Amino acid sequence: MKIFNKVVIFGTGLIGGSLGLALKRKHLITQIIGFSKHKENAIKALKIGAIDYIGSSLDTTQDADLIILATPVDTIIDIMFKISPKLKKDCIVIDVGSTKENIVKELNKLTPNFVGCHPLAGSEKKGIKNAQTDIFNNSICIITSSARTKRNALKKIELLWQKLGAKTIMMHPKQHDQILSFTSHLPHIVAFSLMGAIPDKFLNVSSGGLKDTTRIAASDVLLWSQIFLSNRNNLLVAVTAFQTKLAALKLALKKKDSKHLIKILSKAKEKRERLG
Amino acid sequence: MKIFNKVVIFGTGLIGGSLGLALKRKHLITQIIGFSKHKENAIKALKIGAIDYIGSSLDTTQDADLIILATPVDTIIDIMFKISPKLKKDCIVIDVGSTKENIVKELNKLTPNFVGCHPLAGSEKKGIKNAQTDIFNNSICIITSSARTKRNALKKIELLWQKLGAKTIMMHPKQHDQILSFTSHLPHIVAFSLMGAIPDKFLNVSSGGLKDTTRIAASDVLLWSQIFLSNRNNLLVAVTAFQTKLAALKLALKKKDSKHLIKILSKAKEKRERLG
Repeated sequence: MKIFNKVVIFGTGLIGGSLGLALKRKHLITQIIGFSKHKENAIKALKIGAIDYIGSSLDTTQDADLIILATPVDTIIDIMFKISPKLKKDCIVIDVGSTKENIVKELNKLTPNFVGCHPLAGSEKKGIKNAQTDIFNNSICIITSSARTKRNALKKIELLWQKLGAKTIMMHPKQHDQILSFTSHLPHIVAFSLMGAIPDKFLNVSSGGLKDTTRIAASDVLLWSQIFLSNRNNLLVAVTAFQTKLAALKLALKKKDSKHLIKILSKAKEKRERLG
Repeated sequence: MKIFNKVVIFGTGLIGGSLGLALKRKHLITQIIGFSKHKENAIKALKIGAIDYIGSSLDTTQDADLIILATPVDTIIDIMFKISPKLKKDCIVIDVGSTKENIVKELNKLTPNFVGCHPLAGSEKKGIKNAQTDIFNNSICIITSSARTKRNALKKIELLWQKLGAKTIMMHPKQHDQILSFTSHLPHIVAFSLMGAIPDKFLNVSSGGLKDTTRIAASDVLLWSQIFLSNRNNLLVAVTAFQTKLAALKLALKKKDSKHLIKILSKAKEKRERLG
């Protein structure tokens, strides 16, 4: 079942490329045209079948039914400003950025058919070379909307993600950014800081614990610095909450207060087990 | 090739049980007798073939060729005090505890045939039910010794771990505890604190990043509180180093200093990539 005919995607990286592959494999769209800042990425996307054509002019967006903005968060608004005057009135636009409040606010001014999406399917690996058809399968996709968002667009996009195997969660953009500052952005801050703290000369004596705890410190630096800055206020609150917990654990250790130490660790373990 | 005849193991949990399985599977020992604080664990160890007999009296250590102390760090010294008067003069004793300085100091007073070992093969999972024959394969085992340790015992134990597939690294116990405070104990402190900081109501909106970063926060609480306290001084230094890195990252974020932020993230990412 086709949900959209002509799709134009901006950004053929890990998420954009995987989305192209999945939409085509599941026959949810008729054709997909891809734009990339780096020509070689677009060529690679074409080669693996993530897109049908490489976009040559922005005029190609004029008769698009769906625009997917899959570029780093800092560029999403700029691209939309450029293309929005050309779009059909009923063209639906989505993004897949990791922060939502500002993007939804700005893009909903341009069209009521914009639906902010955040598929929780990324990885520390990036680029079209890591794109895979099934990365959205059994994942969560957060769908955000404002009072201006058209119900019809919302329903169609919800269906699209569900067809890709994702469980959709509806959320206000503000709420999205607050929750993700704790469950995604803070873990990245912590992993980068932990890796920064390990002396170079100790790196050869590590086990699986350190590797897992810091896996996401291998994530793309530019992408993540933009995410951190675009969710700065929430993230500062989350970092402070973490610092408070760490300080309490450190104090129990300093005071050799084994009872309190065990209490803190038990609470964390219990919560971790609920995470699954 | 048998390296030891009669082996007695104290603690038939994840590491002790796996060690029993591996030693038997590789035919490195003739027989192994197991003691456990919890009778049901010893029975399970016997059932899966990790031990040949359940120990009934400490007298069985009298003609042992190798004693393995695989109990939590707080109990290792106590057990050795109890059994050391009974041991043969040339009986070799090893432990597999996560901290070494104090244990090596105390146990080398009792016998020059004690060799402190730390196989980096644990996991957040514990107990005999998670024991596996091959967990030491391609792992690192740190072997520590003091000036008192007999060369012969050291060589035999090094060979034993190598036969189990581990790469052995020789290290002074003091150096071991300093390095591991950063590469193992600090990541655990960080993971427990991170899990503690995530509000309960946000737990259902998480992705692989949070799960990996906090995997080890599901580790055994009693075991890890003992490890933290037994390596307290080094660990306090490591936690402070981490706090300094985190504070610098937070400040760059607060000041919207994207250049400095990128510099910090890049250094961490480069180091993480070297970790492999």
